[in-house]
Amino acid sequence: MRIAIIGSSGHKNYVLDTLDEKSAVVAYAPGTEGEDISAMAAHPALKGARAYGDWKTLMDEVQPEMVVNNTWYGLAAPVTLYALKRGCHVFAEKPLSGTEEELSEIEKAWRESPAYLAGMFGISYEPPLHTVSEYLKKGGIGEIRLINTQKSYKLGKRPDYYGDRATYTGTIPWVGAHGIDWIHRFAGKKFRTLSAYHTTACNGGNGTLEATAVCAYRLEDDVLATLSIDYLRPGGAETHGDDRTRIVGTKGVIEAMGGKVTLTDERGTRELPLAEAPLIFPSLLRDIRSGRGREEWARHALYVTEICLKSRLAADREETIRL
Amino acid sequence: MRIAIIGSSGHKNYVLDTLDEKSAVVAYAPGTEGEDISAMAAHPALKGARAYGDWKTLMDEVQPEMVVNNTWYGLAAPVTLYALKRGCHVFAEKPLSGTEEELSEIEKAWRESPAYLAGMFGISYEPPLHTVSEYLKKGGIGEIRLINTQKSYKLGKRPDYYGDRATYTGTIPWVGAHGIDWIHRFAGKKFRTLSAYHTTACNGGNGTLEATAVCAYRLEDDVLATLSIDYLRPGGAETHGDDRTRIVGTKGVIEAMGGKVTLTDERGTRELPLAEAPLIFPSLLRDIRSGRGREEWARHALYVTEICLKSRLAADREETIRL
Repeated sequence: MRIAIIGSSGHKNYVLDTLDEKSAVVAYAPGTEGEDISAMAAHPALKGARAYGDWKTLMDEVQPEMVVNNTWYGLAAPVTLYALKRGCHVFAEKPLSGTEEELSEIEKAWRESPAYLAGMFGISYEPPLHTVSEYLKKGGIGEIRLINTQKSYKLGKRPDYYGDRATYTGTIPWVGAHGIDWIHRFAGKKFRTLSAYHTTACNGGNGTLEATAVCAYRLEDDVLATLSIDYLRPGGAETHGDDRTRIVGTKGVIEAMGGKVTLTDERGTRELPLAEAPLIFPSLLRDIRSGRGREEWARHALYVTEICLKSRLAADREETIRL
Repeated sequence: MRIAIIGSSGHKNYVLDTLDEKSAVVAYAPGTEGEDISAMAAHPALKGARAYGDWKTLMDEVQPEMVVNNTWYGLAAPVTLYALKRGCHVFAEKPLSGTEEELSEIEKAWRESPAYLAGMFGISYEPPLHTVSEYLKKGGIGEIRLINTQKSYKLGKRPDYYGDRATYTGTIPWVGAHGIDWIHRFAGKKFRTLSAYHTTACNGGNGTLEATAVCAYRLEDDVLATLSIDYLRPGGAETHGDDRTRIVGTKGVIEAMGGKVTLTDERGTRELPLAEAPLIFPSLLRDIRSGRGREEWARHALYVTEICLKSRLAADREETIRL
C-alpha cells in the first residue's frame, strides 16, 4: 500500500506506528498554507518519503493508493474529496468536515468511488474500549439502556488554528466525536433527539475554542446518553486525557476509566482483564486487503460527523434537534 | 422541639437517627390512606409517640412545632401547606410537590408564615459532599465551569406508589432532585436552559416509573452541567446507590465517588480526607434555634423543586426550556 500523509495536525501516528511490511509512506505534504509539518521530516517511518510543498501536486504526481488526511480539521474536506474522486482510499481525522454541505459532497464522492473512507476513531480500537466491545458482543450486560461518556483534556498551548472554528470545527466535533463514536458504536442505535450546550468561557485566550460542552441524547428505542467535554484537566494531572465510558444495561454496568475496565453485575464489581487490541490502522488495512467492511467504515465516519455537526448546531442555537 | 412525623415513605431516619435531648417525636400518622407506617411502631425513637390514623387530626390535636413530611412524594404538598399555614416548621421529602401549582401555593404559604421550610437533601450534609463543599469554599479549584452528576439505584421491589406519577412525581423529580441540588449548591448559580430525556422502558413493570433519565443544563455565566439517572444498578452491586459528582474548575477537578473524594490539580491526583459531617437535621435544628437561615433553607428547597418539575416537563416534551 503506497500511502501519502497530508497534514501533520492529527493522529498520523495511528499509521506511522503500525505500518507493516506491505505498506509504506511514500510522500507527505502540508494540507494548507501555514501548516507546520516539520515534525514529519525527523520521523524514522518517513525516511524514504518525499516531501511536497503542495498536496495537490503530491496527489497528481505520486498517485498514492491511500491518503492519511490529518490537516487542520476544518480544512480537511477538500483533501478527502480530491482523493475519493481519484479512487484513492482515505483515512481521515474526525470530523470528516466542518460543514454539512461538505459532508454531503464527501458522501456522494465516496458512493461514486471504489475507495475506502475511514475516520480516525482510534481510541475504540485500543485495549480498554476493545475489551468493552468484546464484552458487549457477548451480551453480558443485557439490553443497553444508558451511556455516559466523558472527554477531559489538558488545554496546554494550542496552535492558532484551534482558536478559529473555520480551521478547528469546534470542540463538540473535534473532541466530542469520540464520545459520539462510543455512544453510536456501543448502543448500535441511531440518534433521534439532540440537545447540547457549549461555551468559549475560560478558554485560555484560544479564540472561538469552546472550553466546555455537554450533550444529552435520546437514541432509537429510548436509549439515553450523555457526553461531557472539557479542556480543563489540570496541567499537573498524570495523563493528558481523562476519557470515560459507562454503559448501563439491564443486567450489568460496564465502564472504562483510567485505562481500566470495570464490570458490575449480579456477581458484584470486578476489573476485567484487557483484551488484545486490534488497533485501528491494521484493522483498516486488513479490511481493505480482503475487500470487507467498505460500507461500515464509511457509514460510521459519515454518521458520527453528521451527529457532531448537528450537536454543534443544537449548542449554537440552544435548541433541541429531532432527526 | 415537639415533632410529628407524617408518612413513612422517605428519609424520616434523617430525624430519627439524630434527635437530641431537646427534641422528641410526639406523634406520627400516615400521610394518605393506604400508606404503610408499620415500620414506625417498632422504632425506639418513637416509643413515647402517639400513633394517629389521620394526619389532620394529629395536626389539630397535637399542634407540633415541626412536621417531618415524608408521605408519598406526589401527595406531600397538602401536608406541607397545612403545617405552614399553622406556623409549624416543615422538614419535607424532595421534591416539595409534584406540580408547579402546588409549589406556588407552598411558596406563598411559607412567605406568609414564620415557619422554616426545608427539603431532605441529606446527602449533601454527609462526609463526602460536605468535604467537597468545604474545599470549594476555600476556592481550591478556581472558577467552577462544569458539573457532572450521577444517581444510580437498584430497582429492587418498589411499592405500588412508585408506579404512578401522581404519587411518585417521577424519576427526575424524586431521584434527580439530588443531582439538581448538587449542581445548584456547588455552582452557586441559577439554571438558565434545560434539556432532558426520560423513559419508562425496562422499568421492571413499575407502571410510569422512568428507569433512565438524562439532563443537560446551562446555568448563569455559562456554567454547564449534566445529570444521569438510572434504576439499573445490578442487585449484586456492593451498595444500593452509585452516586457521583464531578466538579470541574479552572484550577482543579474535585470528585465524589464510591464514598471517596478525589482532587486533581497542579500537584496531581490525590484523595482528600473526609471532613466531619454536620448532617442535615442537626444543622436545621441549630438554625431554627438560632433564628438563622430561614430564607436559605426554603429558597433552596423551592428552587430545586422548580428545576425538577421543569426538567420533567422538558423530558416529557423533548423540548429545551429557557428560564
